[in-house]
Amino acid sequence: MTIQLTRRYSFAAAHRLHIPRLGEEENRRIYGKCNNPYGHGHNYVLEVTVSGPVDPATGMVAHLGELDHFVEREVLEAFDHKNLNEEIAAFRERVPTTENLCIEIYNRLRSFPAARLARVRLEETSLNTFEYSGETDGSPS
Amino acid sequence: MTIQLTRRYSFAAAHRLHIPRLGEEENRRIYGKCNNPYGHGHNYVLEVTVSGPVDPATGMVAHLGELDHFVEREVLEAFDHKNLNEEIAAFRERVPTTENLCIEIYNRLRSFPAARLARVRLEETSLNTFEYSGETDGSPS
Amino acid sequence: MTIQLTRRYSFAAAHRLHIPRLGEEENRRIYGKCNNPYGHGHNYVLEVTVSGPVDPATGMVAHLGELDHFVEREVLEAFDHKNLNEEIAAFRERVPTTENLCIEIYNRLRSFPAARLARVRLEETSLNTFEYSGETDGSPS
Amino acid sequence: MTIQLTRRYSFAAAHRLHIPRLGEEENRRIYGKCNNPYGHGHNYVLEVTVSGPVDPATGMVAHLGELDHFVEREVLEAFDHKNLNEEIAAFRERVPTTENLCIEIYNRLRSFPAARLARVRLEETSLNTFEYSGETDGSPS
Amino acid sequence: MTIQLTRRYSFAAAHRLHIPRLGEEENRRIYGKCNNPYGHGHNYVLEVTVSGPVDPATGMVAHLGELDHFVEREVLEAFDHKNLNEEIAAFRERVPTTENLCIEIYNRLRSFPAARLARVRLEETSLNTFEYSGETDGSPS
Amino acid sequence: MTIQLTRRYSFAAAHRLHIPRLGEEENRRIYGKCNNPYGHGHNYVLEVTVSGPVDPATGMVAHLGELDHFVEREVLEAFDHKNLNEEIAAFRERVPTTENLCIEIYNRLRSFPAARLARVRLEETSLNTFEYSGETDGSPS
Repeated sequence: MTIQLTRRYSFAAAHRLHIPRLGEEENRRIYGKCNNPYGHGHNYVLEVTVSGPVDPATGMVAHLGELDHFVEREVLEAFDHKNLNEEIAAFRERVPTTENLCIEIYNRLRSFPAARLARVRLEETSLNTFEYSGETDGSPS
Repeated sequence: MTIQLTRRYSFAAAHRLHIPRLGEEENRRIYGKCNNPYGHGHNYVLEVTVSGPVDPATGMVAHLGELDHFVEREVLEAFDHKNLNEEIAAFRERVPTTENLCIEIYNRLRSFPAARLARVRLEETSLNTFEYSGETDGSPS
Repeated sequence: MTIQLTRRYSFAAAHRLHIPRLGEEENRRIYGKCNNPYGHGHNYVLEVTVSGPVDPATGMVAHLGELDHFVEREVLEAFDHKNLNEEIAAFRERVPTTENLCIEIYNRLRSFPAARLARVRLEETSLNTFEYSGETDGSPS
Repeated sequence: MTIQLTRRYSFAAAHRLHIPRLGEEENRRIYGKCNNPYGHGHNYVLEVTVSGPVDPATGMVAHLGELDHFVEREVLEAFDHKNLNEEIAAFRERVPTTENLCIEIYNRLRSFPAARLARVRLEETSLNTFEYSGETDGSPS
Repeated sequence: MTIQLTRRYSFAAAHRLHIPRLGEEENRRIYGKCNNPYGHGHNYVLEVTVSGPVDPATGMVAHLGELDHFVEREVLEAFDHKNLNEEIAAFRERVPTTENLCIEIYNRLRSFPAARLARVRLEETSLNTFEYSGETDGSPS
Repeated sequence: MTIQLTRRYSFAAAHRLHIPRLGEEENRRIYGKCNNPYGHGHNYVLEVTVSGPVDPATGMVAHLGELDHFVEREVLEAFDHKNLNEEIAAFRERVPTTENLCIEIYNRLRSFPAARLARVRLEETSLNTFEYSGETDGSPS
C-alpha cells in the first residue's frame, strides 16, 4: 500500500533572469521584465511529495519532523531570504528560472532516507507552477 | 529532464445544460437546477499543463508569453464573457457540461508548438474540477 | 461584548450589463465585454456578517442553522443557478452590476431577526469584491 | 475519452495518535503533540477523484448528486463531527493517522458504481496532504 | 500615521459543545452534531491585528518576532493540539463555542506591550469566521 | 448608499531591510534574515478599496478599467519586477518595510478621481498583512 505525502513549505528570494554572454536587448527579448537589472523577488511555495508504504506499527509513511528537518537543512536554509544569483553556487552558471530552481531542489532532496522522493512542485506566483519528478518517463535514473 | 509547467487562467461564461430531444421533466431529472431555462454561469478556472525538456540556454520549458498568447487566442477570446450554448459552435450539438468544455479546450490547445500539452484542468466551482489528458491510456492518439 | 459572525455562501448566476435606453456603442463603452449580448456568468461568493452580544447560556451570537435557513430562503433560492436579468424583479429596472446585487442582497437580509445584519460582502471574481453596510456614514436610516 | 472528476468535501473530527502497547515516552517520541492525552482535531478536506468515459448523451462522467450521496453515506455520516479513535471501528486496532484514514476512506469508496475510483486525497492541515490510489503500481487489485 | 498589522496563526484542537445542566435532547437541539458525545475538532485559523504608529527609525509598527513569541506563549502553547473542554480552565464553566474562544484569545492578547491589540479573528472552518474587537461600540473600556 | 469596491493586484519585487547609519550587528538584531546583504523578494498582493455612492444610471461605484489604469500607472509600473531599495526614490531615505510600502502606495493612490480611496491592504506573505487608511482617527489631514 503505497501512499503519497505532500508537505508545503515556502521561502522568499530575489533573482534576476539574465544570460551574461548575450546582449541587453536579447536578454530583454527572452526574459522581459524578469531581466530588470536590479532583480526582483518572489514568495516561492514549495511542495515536496514523498511516497512509500505505510509503516504498520506507526501508521505513517514518513515522520513529518524528519522531513521538515531535511528540507530545512538542504533547501530552506540556503534559499530563504537569499538572492539566488548571488548566493547559490548552482546559479553562477545556470539561469535561476523556476524550472532550474525546481530541478536544483529536487536534486538536493532526492537522498531523503525515510521515503522515496516522488515529486517537487514549485509555485513562483499563484499563476505559475513547475513540477519535476526526476528522469524522463521510462529512463533509468 | 522533463519538467511540467502549469499556468492558471480564468474566464466567466454562461451556460445551460439541456438535451433538446428530451422532455422538460427528463432534463430536470438529469441536470437538476443546471437545467434552469434562462441559464446561469460560472467563473471557470483553467489550468493548462505543458511538458518538455528545459532549454539549457534559457532555462525555460516554454515561454510564458507565448503560452499566454496561444491560450488567449485559442480559448479565452472565444469563451470569456460568452454564453457557451449560444456562441460556441461545438456546443450546438453537444451539451456544454464542464466535461465537454474541458475536452473542447484540450483539443483547441493540443497544437501548442513550443511544448507538449500534457493536461487541461478545469474548475467549475471551488468544489468541482475536471481533468483531461487526451486519449485513454495506451491508445494511439 | 459584541462579536461578529461571518458566514460564507456561494451561488452561480448569469447576467448581462446593459442599459436599454442607451445605444449599443454607448453600452459597449461603459460595460466592455460585460455587455456581450448573450450574457455571461459568475460564481458569486457571498459573505454575510451579523453582529450582536454572545448569549451567556449558549455561547453563540446566532444559530448558524437559522442564519443558513434565512439566507437560503431570502437569497440563494432566488439567485442560485438563475439569470439575474430575466428572473429577478429588482433587475428589470436596475442594471445587475455586483454593486446593485450587493445592495439587493443586503436589503433582503436586513430583517434577520436573531442578530443585527452588519455587512454584506460579494465577490464577483477572485479579483473584485463589493461590500455594503447599509446607510451612508452617520445618516439616519 | 477518459476524464477525471474531482469533488471536494470536508469534515471535522477529533483524534489521538497513540499505540497502546507502547509506553508514554515512546508514544511521545513518535507522535509529538499529536499524542496529547485528551485528543485534538482537524478540519479534514477530502478530494475524491473518479474517472471514466464521458457519456455521449449527457456529457457527464458521473452524476454529481450520486457521488455526493455515496460519499455522504459511506464516509461523511460516519466521520463528520466524530472522534475517530472512539467511534470508527477500523481505528480500534489501527492508529488514526491521516495515512490510515486516507486508505480507510479509499476502501469505503472503491465500490462507487458509476465511475472508477481513481484517487483519494486528504488534507489534514493546509500544509499536509496524503494521497492514495489503491494498490502499488502494476499489482493486480 | 496609524497602520494595522495582521498576522496569521493556526492551531488544531478538539472540543464538544454541551451545557451540562441541560438534558441530552435540549443540547442536541441547540448544538446539533457539535454536541456529539466524544467531541470533534478543527484547524482554527487565528488572525491577530495590532495597530499603532510606524516607528520612523525602523519602519515597523511592531516586531513580528515579538508578536509571534507573545501569541505563542499566551495562546498557541495552551490551545494547540489540545482538547478545549478538558484542558483550558476558562472552558470548564463556559461552552467552548468559537465566539467564546475568540473572546478568550482576545483577553489573553490584550496586554501585548508593543502595539495596541485591535482585533482577533478566528476561523472555525473555511465557512465560519468570528471577530472580536473588545468593548461594545462607544463604551469606555 | 455608499458601497466599497476592493480590487486585487499583485507585483513581485526585491528589497533589503537595512538602516545604513547602524552597524551590521544592530541591523541584524532588528531585521533578522530580512537584513541579508544581497536582498530577497516577495510576491506582494495589493488590495485597493475605494468607496462612494453607486451611480444610479450605470449601477457602478467606479469603472474597474479606470481604477486598473490608475493603479497600473501610479504603482505597478514603478514597483513590479523592481528592487525597492534601488529603484524607488522614496526608499532611498526610508527603509522599505511593508508598512512604509503600504503608506507609499496609499499616497500614490489617494488622488484617484472617480471615488474616494478608503484603504490600501498589502500582503507581504500569506501570513503578514498591513493595512493603511490614511490619517489617524479623527485627525484633520
